[in-house]
Amino acid sequence: MGEYEHILVKRENDTVTITMNRAARRNSLSEEHLRELHAAFQAAGQSDATGIVLAGAGPVFSAGHDFGDVAARDLEGVRSLLRLCTDLMHTIQSVPQVVIARVHGLATAAGCQLVASCDLAVAAESAGFALPGGKGGWFCHTPAVPVARAVGRKRLMELALTGDPIDAATALDWGLVNRVVPDEQLDEAVAELLGRATRGSRASKALGKTTLYAQLDRPEADAYAIAVEVMAAASQTPDAREGMAAFLEKRKPNWG
Amino acid sequence: MGEYEHILVKRENDTVTITMNRAARRNSLSEEHLRELHAAFQAAGQSDATGIVLAGAGPVFSAGHDFGDVAARDLEGVRSLLRLCTDLMHTIQSVPQVVIARVHGLATAAGCQLVASCDLAVAAESAGFALPGGKGGWFCHTPAVPVARAVGRKRLMELALTGDPIDAATALDWGLVNRVVPDEQLDEAVAELLGRATRGSRASKALGKTTLYAQLDRPEADAYAIAVEVMAAASQTPDAREGMAAFLEKRKPNWG
Amino acid sequence: MGEYEHILVKRENDTVTITMNRAARRNSLSEEHLRELHAAFQAAGQSDATGIVLAGAGPVFSAGHDFGDVAARDLEGVRSLLRLCTDLMHTIQSVPQVVIARVHGLATAAGCQLVASCDLAVAAESAGFALPGGKGGWFCHTPAVPVARAVGRKRLMELALTGDPIDAATALDWGLVNRVVPDEQLDEAVAELLGRATRGSRASKALGKTTLYAQLDRPEADAYAIAVEVMAAASQTPDAREGMAAFLEKRKPNWG
Repeated sequence: MGEYEHILVKRENDTVTITMNRAARRNSLSEEHLRELHAAFQAAGQSDATGIVLAGAGPVFSAGHDFGDVAARDLEGVRSLLRLCTDLMHTIQSVPQVVIARVHGLATAAGCQLVASCDLAVAAESAGFALPGGKGGWFCHTPAVPVARAVGRKRLMELALTGDPIDAATALDWGLVNRVVPDEQLDEAVAELLGRATRGSRASKALGKTTLYAQLDRPEADAYAIAVEVMAAASQTPDAREGMAAFLEKRKPNWG
Repeated sequence: MGEYEHILVKRENDTVTITMNRAARRNSLSEEHLRELHAAFQAAGQSDATGIVLAGAGPVFSAGHDFGDVAARDLEGVRSLLRLCTDLMHTIQSVPQVVIARVHGLATAAGCQLVASCDLAVAAESAGFALPGGKGGWFCHTPAVPVARAVGRKRLMELALTGDPIDAATALDWGLVNRVVPDEQLDEAVAELLGRATRGSRASKALGKTTLYAQLDRPEADAYAIAVEVMAAASQTPDAREGMAAFLEKRKPNWG
Repeated sequence: MGEYEHILVKRENDTVTITMNRAARRNSLSEEHLRELHAAFQAAGQSDATGIVLAGAGPVFSAGHDFGDVAARDLEGVRSLLRLCTDLMHTIQSVPQVVIARVHGLATAAGCQLVASCDLAVAAESAGFALPGGKGGWFCHTPAVPVARAVGRKRLMELALTGDPIDAATALDWGLVNRVVPDEQLDEAVAELLGRATRGSRASKALGKTTLYAQLDRPEADAYAIAVEVMAAASQTPDAREGMAAFLEKRKPNWG
């Protein structure tokens, strides 16, 4: 599945696992690393897989941007790096597959942004989450965008202003992750949740995921304007018709 | 209070109770059922009642759309059904009364949407909540609109993508309902919360409810632009003046 | 730090503490009191302090608007009062300092709005929070604006419609405050959280705070459009460069 230097990509059954593999650099997001992640998500998005796992090799999930790659850049250079990073986040949300973060160790700055941007997230008890720019010299402006949309406002302010990490249990309580499990059960828990999240019609779910992101953060009437049209159109698709027919005929559906 | 086939409407003191009464069809929302609910909410909205309870008869609260009524429809037919359903949700939020969902058993798809759309919700311990389209062929696009606005984003994704139910305690933790009580205390808990939510000036509360829904989901400055003008205008109403006068004179207010 | 009648302003080290000091009027927000708070926040905002504590003297934090000051006003008079109050809330969010509410006793109506509008909040176990207009004649339209953005929708509806107070533990669970501590530890907890929230580059944090409020409540793509440009520009500032250099050189940074 492509030749990569910074990441590992593995396909097993219906799942593509993309593993950040710069352990010596704490899986920090250099431009090349971001380009490979972006390419891997695009490739997986065009595959017939139903789920994508985003994982990290080594002691942490991801430490965010690589200051060694940022420090020497001028304005245009940083802007293009941040646009690439934002494109990656957008791609995660726009691929038809369900994307789940498998989080162990620390997920900081753009690493925390990755967790917030995945559709679902399962964390090991060892995991921690931080927006450390708040105690440094370069604030976590873009990581705060999806984090703000997962946790409440006061909690966002605490994360962003203090820069201190929260533990996995707090992340669960605040809604940043869906599950917390002992570290040795992490793979099993990721597979279990992803399995439940990838059942049903693939076409229906892909449209569903895209429409969810389109309607969020909008006034309710605007969200309904989108959702009503999509849902009406979706009712005419073969999989919707098959699903309803199977339900009414009390049989298992066969998806196209 | 009108002649209905699919619902029961009862007025007791200041409360109208609208009960979905298609137990054999799990209170599913056929077009006729939706029309009756819409008409009943409009009629209650024009009455002098102060509160409306939405309940379901039989083993579940509501199973959502009636596939038997959807399966044969063309695009325009489904669109008009979904618009009617959306009109019902909007009517629940725009009537001057406080609307509270009394939830027992399962509330799924558009049934879960009803719970999310009511101003308040009390659930029995037996209740469950699901957006089951996620594991079928027709995604719960419109139910996800108000559910997304009650729970966090990761929790929405879990509900919408897995299609699996959450229990009442989880719904309380996530903010989808206001109270969870043992099943045999459900009516009492609904009456208690509704009683507290319907005190005070009826005119003031009606304006308050409408303005809350108008300002939500908007940038804070836009929300303030709405709220400041409404609150200034409201200060000149007889009930606002009476409320302030009673407070300053240390007596009970008399609402108009 | 200025001559005030209704408030106390104290500077200690890098922290300005602004204390509402109308205990006999339960720190209610008369026009003069609001003007002094507004002026004090503006003055503190222009100072070199890094943090601002908002506190209340006497038995409660603040009872909100002073009905004695509102009751006789005409439409234009109330509108100008509410605009002043909204300006205060906006100023709290736009000063470069981290603003933390120190909440003891009741914070009601516009007093609760102050808590919701501060960046962070620490509450004593004795604290309570309410939007009491819901059971009166003048609904808490403007207080509900920031409260809605801190707690979930169903919880907002319960607060706004019932008018009843929630206790400190509930406020913590709902995300309205960041910490709850025994009353005698309140000052210590405020100082601890504020200390962690004010580390790092002052210039970076000021830009960070402003940008957070600018991107919240917007569709994610709009939020990214703001955050990417600000973060790219921020990367070129002396403090961002110093922070990255210090990190790469494994030394402590020196902020400008």
